[in-house]
Amino acid sequence: MLAYRLIERKRDGGRLDAGEWRALVMAYAAGHVPDYQMAAFLMASFLRGLDRAETAALTEAMLTSGERMQLSDLGVPRVDKHSTGGVGDKVSLVLAPLMASLGVAVPMMSGRGLGHTGGTLDKLESIPGFRTNLTLAEARKQLEQVGCALIGQSNEIAPADRKMYALRDATATVESIPLIAASIMSKKLAEDLTGLVLDVKRGSGAFLPELERDLELAEAMIRLGADHECPVVALVTAMDRPLGRACGNALEVEEAIHALKGEGPADLIQLTYALGAEMLVLAGAVPDVDLARREMEKAIGTGRAAERFQQIIEAQGGNPGVVDDPAVLPQAAECELYIAPRRGFVARVEPRAVGRGIIALGGGRTTIDDVVDPTVGFVITARPGDWVEQGEPLATIFARDRAGVDAGRQALRNAISIAEEADPPLPLVSHRVTAGGVEVVQQA
Amino acid sequence: MLAYRLIERKRDGGRLDAGEWRALVMAYAAGHVPDYQMAAFLMASFLRGLDRAETAALTEAMLTSGERMQLSDLGVPRVDKHSTGGVGDKVSLVLAPLMASLGVAVPMMSGRGLGHTGGTLDKLESIPGFRTNLTLAEARKQLEQVGCALIGQSNEIAPADRKMYALRDATATVESIPLIAASIMSKKLAEDLTGLVLDVKRGSGAFLPELERDLELAEAMIRLGADHECPVVALVTAMDRPLGRACGNALEVEEAIHALKGEGPADLIQLTYALGAEMLVLAGAVPDVDLARREMEKAIGTGRAAERFQQIIEAQGGNPGVVDDPAVLPQAAECELYIAPRRGFVARVEPRAVGRGIIALGGGRTTIDDVVDPTVGFVITARPGDWVEQGEPLATIFARDRAGVDAGRQALRNAISIAEEADPPLPLVSHRVTAGGVEVVQQA
Repeated sequence: MLAYRLIERKRDGGRLDAGEWRALVMAYAAGHVPDYQMAAFLMASFLRGLDRAETAALTEAMLTSGERMQLSDLGVPRVDKHSTGGVGDKVSLVLAPLMASLGVAVPMMSGRGLGHTGGTLDKLESIPGFRTNLTLAEARKQLEQVGCALIGQSNEIAPADRKMYALRDATATVESIPLIAASIMSKKLAEDLTGLVLDVKRGSGAFLPELERDLELAEAMIRLGADHECPVVALVTAMDRPLGRACGNALEVEEAIHALKGEGPADLIQLTYALGAEMLVLAGAVPDVDLARREMEKAIGTGRAAERFQQIIEAQGGNPGVVDDPAVLPQAAECELYIAPRRGFVARVEPRAVGRGIIALGGGRTTIDDVVDPTVGFVITARPGDWVEQGEPLATIFARDRAGVDAGRQALRNAISIAEEADPPLPLVSHRVTAGGVEVVQQA
Repeated sequence: MLAYRLIERKRDGGRLDAGEWRALVMAYAAGHVPDYQMAAFLMASFLRGLDRAETAALTEAMLTSGERMQLSDLGVPRVDKHSTGGVGDKVSLVLAPLMASLGVAVPMMSGRGLGHTGGTLDKLESIPGFRTNLTLAEARKQLEQVGCALIGQSNEIAPADRKMYALRDATATVESIPLIAASIMSKKLAEDLTGLVLDVKRGSGAFLPELERDLELAEAMIRLGADHECPVVALVTAMDRPLGRACGNALEVEEAIHALKGEGPADLIQLTYALGAEMLVLAGAVPDVDLARREMEKAIGTGRAAERFQQIIEAQGGNPGVVDDPAVLPQAAECELYIAPRRGFVARVEPRAVGRGIIALGGGRTTIDDVVDPTVGFVITARPGDWVEQGEPLATIFARDRAGVDAGRQALRNAISIAEEADPPLPLVSHRVTAGGVEVVQQA
């Protein structure tokens, strides 16, 4: 009866108070409110919206549905980074060991790939033996030992969010800014952070392609952080093309390892530094972003960052040899070059088409139960704005078999367009959002 | 996957074509679309609306999910009446035998009471032995024999509507005009009617209190009838006070029997004649409503209408003696007068408060599984606009026990307000709606 009245009220554009949000979320998590009532409520919430106080109350209700880490006694600052998801985005794999090597703890809880976007857990699991299902106690111990734990959302953290997210995923109620903000922040706030950096993707391959909505999401999450004394800084970054060159689980791990050694593609390095600088400043480890950048360059230059990745991999049961020799990673049975079908400018490298191509190759998921093949994917060297001659290689396709190669070729034909002229791509980092407001980032 | 895409499209304000409505409804009826997806879809439909073609397609899909009666070979016209529901509305019990006694077949499918409104099935079942769960074959045989069958929605008729209505009832998605229109018409069109008369209630006790929405509903149903060559006429009638005096199942049967003998309260008789005249004209039994009224007066005056009710009761296993002696009906253990707490005008007799009072007495339902006590209720003699003296009887309470009497007294205290002045009540019949448009009905 409670649920019915709350559905009705939200349907008619009304609001729930904090006690009502808490009661509804708890009753749903406990199975006392059936999925069909929650589905109707979520659709009403999607279409009618939640105000600030409601978004905060929902976040709080989901946060308190589970455990929270207690990390303040670690004696070091704790920061995390969250990305709204994209194609080729392996920044977490570089950033987490890099931060840990600089004395900042990173209790990083990640997700799996779904739809056209990849997931950090899938990437990590392409490292032989790597285990992501740590308990909170194990994660805590590892944070003490190596300053970083790369884990999945355990059943202990925000179980109400977990259940509600699965329902949203099946009922077309995902793309709601207050619901997204509450879902992400209920998990991040459970990490007991000193600060959080958000990478909000914009452009055709992003979850929310429009800048206006990206800024809205960033602001909603910043407010939720402020409610819990967790300062949040968001960077709005480009996802109108894949990040870096490698797209596909093991291929991205390999590229991340190169980046940790200072050999990654420029955009990957640049974005890692931009996000990492914010993290170091939030952690209080350095006074400003220029110093932060110098510290990061040093950690990479001296090999400390790569070494820390080795320690993390070892702690989580993976083969640490992968850092010295990426050939330890599983290898695709077939690989073939993809060449330019005509001369001209590379006008677009469409991330959604690349992501769908990875799914077609068996390396992605359309449902959460799909098993991914870590070996498949693309290394795309062509970048928007490049001039290419007919027959010039644009990418390499990694597949299980010849049929996969054909599927990969078809996907790249859709993804990479060559034209007489190319519009300029989006700036890699375009906006910086803090509690103080939105700044446009000056391009270097 | 189909359901997901349709939810998404409706959520974004798009429309489904006829094939998609059919596929979705069939998949839901067959259990291939889970309740939670349908619940999200229904909330999106509630908030985004359905256009005319979609409403027609939904109606058609639900209609064809089940059996349809084949009655054209009966050799007589078939008409039915549907009311959007109210308190004290026992018109069906008078109208059905009255029409049958005039040679017009009435294949009447009714519902149960839910919330503050009563249901014809519950009223009929207060007659000892009366059985409403006839199969379509039994109903057809009875139509041949006595020209009327008073039945519930069998599993054979529009099963998709049945399942969807139960879900709407639990997810606050009932009060949507296209969804209501499609639900009602999918059942009525299965009755193979020559014509249908709608009693669309307006005012505080109505399902849709506002005139504007009542007219919208009437017009939607008229259009759906026209699509299936079933002419529909709607009267908009008053539900700002109960209809007649009796409110409660057995009490209403008794009042209906009095009305069939020409002794009913004026408003009940007047509304029965107004609706009956439309039915007879639609059936082609008489050329105009004046003649129709004379025929009805004759059928009541000669006792033919009451006699027909006896035959119907007998055919459905009930005790036909009830028509001669209503004391055959179950009787309440306690009854007590409710007297005016002060002098003044009766300003309001609020149907919702009366309906909730019947539930408090045990004579109504809050969920479809509740068992009703047929004996309890009220006979309310005070009518809005009456001048009453302190201590004058306004109503009689019928209850199971003393606690019931107290609950009934409390309900009437809320329902009946006495004031220095009374606003005029709504006209009993205010509008007549046909395919040609809306007419304001001149008051007699």
